[in-house]
Amino acid sequence: MTYRPRLSSAFRPPTIEVDSVNERGERLTTAIAGEYPLTIYLDKRELVTLMTLGQRPEALVLGYLRNQRLVRSLAEIEAVQVDWEVGACAVTSFAGIDDLDSRLATRTVTTGCGQGTVFGDLMAEIDSIELPADRRLSEATYYRLLDNVRRYDSVYKAAGAVHGCALARGEEILYFVEDVGRHNAVDAIAGQMWLDAVEGCDKIFYTTGRLTSEMVIKCAQMGIPFLVSRSGLTQMGHALARRVGITMIGRATGKHYLLFTGEHRFVRSPRSERAAAPVSC
Amino acid sequence: MTYRPRLSSAFRPPTIEVDSVNERGERLTTAIAGEYPLTIYLDKRELVTLMTLGQRPEALVLGYLRNQRLVRSLAEIEAVQVDWEVGACAVTSFAGIDDLDSRLATRTVTTGCGQGTVFGDLMAEIDSIELPADRRLSEATYYRLLDNVRRYDSVYKAAGAVHGCALARGEEILYFVEDVGRHNAVDAIAGQMWLDAVEGCDKIFYTTGRLTSEMVIKCAQMGIPFLVSRSGLTQMGHALARRVGITMIGRATGKHYLLFTGEHRFVRSPRSERAAAPVSC
Repeated sequence: MTYRPRLSSAFRPPTIEVDSVNERGERLTTAIAGEYPLTIYLDKRELVTLMTLGQRPEALVLGYLRNQRLVRSLAEIEAVQVDWEVGACAVTSFAGIDDLDSRLATRTVTTGCGQGTVFGDLMAEIDSIELPADRRLSEATYYRLLDNVRRYDSVYKAAGAVHGCALARGEEILYFVEDVGRHNAVDAIAGQMWLDAVEGCDKIFYTTGRLTSEMVIKCAQMGIPFLVSRSGLTQMGHALARRVGITMIGRATGKHYLLFTGEHRFVRSPRSERAAAPVSC
Repeated sequence: MTYRPRLSSAFRPPTIEVDSVNERGERLTTAIAGEYPLTIYLDKRELVTLMTLGQRPEALVLGYLRNQRLVRSLAEIEAVQVDWEVGACAVTSFAGIDDLDSRLATRTVTTGCGQGTVFGDLMAEIDSIELPADRRLSEATYYRLLDNVRRYDSVYKAAGAVHGCALARGEEILYFVEDVGRHNAVDAIAGQMWLDAVEGCDKIFYTTGRLTSEMVIKCAQMGIPFLVSRSGLTQMGHALARRVGITMIGRATGKHYLLFTGEHRFVRSPRSERAAAPVSC
């Protein structure tokens, strides 16, 4: 059985209602997305304050520690306890984290959003990542997945102002996480994958956010060969996707898409649409 | 005459072209936004690496230092020199920056995007900000400004994947900056305002990005009483806007908008649209 740290099960209501006046002078009640500060303490040391929608705070914190390379294995973590009363998450390790001081001291800060924080040299790591070359995603499965994403009952539909990420196996959505920042949504999925011992090699990562350098790096680090976005991409997102050989699709809306890199894994349907099997690991 | 540090005048081409395949199997050449790392050195000390579109890098760096409260006055800065060959910006102060070590040591990291970096306690500062109560923005001027924004020849139209911010006086756009991250775009405008000794008190800040806590804080810090966004808002963005008394309009698209806070400064047109004077300081 997979090891799991002791976890709280805290979350925040995703939306609150506020008053507004529209262009016709009508007073309305509008749902807006929640946004709450959550300060992470690792063995009582304050690391960072994230502003989050608070849907999966324990997974977010674990994913943050994972993606920032501050914690290497889930087995190092004894407990993750979120307390919204004080806006804090206490992470306890079994035996302390090796090198935490030096990892924090030598932090480099890169940015995708543009001012996200990344510890250590992620760029150097990217060359050591090998994504599986033999996975396939058929166009028919891709379209069914997009349709599932579209129909998902999301905070975005109710309130906007959030980014959504999904982890999918074929057309099946395994996780769907929204947050006020797209990095948080990615990190929460990385944390949930850790908790459930889910591998990335046969998965598809969908995001509403742009394909910047950081998005590609995180996806590659999770070992996921397919990256799909409703939005566009940047030059460095493109360059990194090519370097790491990920299959990257942008502008994924309705029937339209643009396949930018990793063409060999994407199987276009012949004109007579055939049913397609989901990818398998 | 206003003091200006010695500045390089470096910028990057905003878009590059890459190949893609669309849903009809057609090979296309697609313009995508540039994204370049720029590492800031303040008196030879490495502070941060920003990923940027690189349109106004000198203003971006100055605005970053201003908004992070690392530099209090432009007069402290002798030179800002960007060198894209090495992806670095060297900022030189005349006499060193007081307390730089302690400011960096006690950094708190808050997030809007959600993992942006802010030094010092910006939240405490917000209560000391007083925005002018007597400025007015008429609905007619507002609509003309939105129209000017819409017609602006932007990188977004060509390549997507960037956020845009504008500083306006009435309907007139003074600056329009785009960047891969919305924080960078805001910071670049803050830097340009510093360089040109432009006050915020009679200005309107427009952003394509969401109205999160950090966006409201930065706008208030620049002393700007009007904040307009094409996107939605978050709970904390709303709470801060109320607290600081900013006039905040969201969902600004076409003829539609939602006025959330600071109603007293917004003058709705009677049904017979009258011409309206721009706000004045």
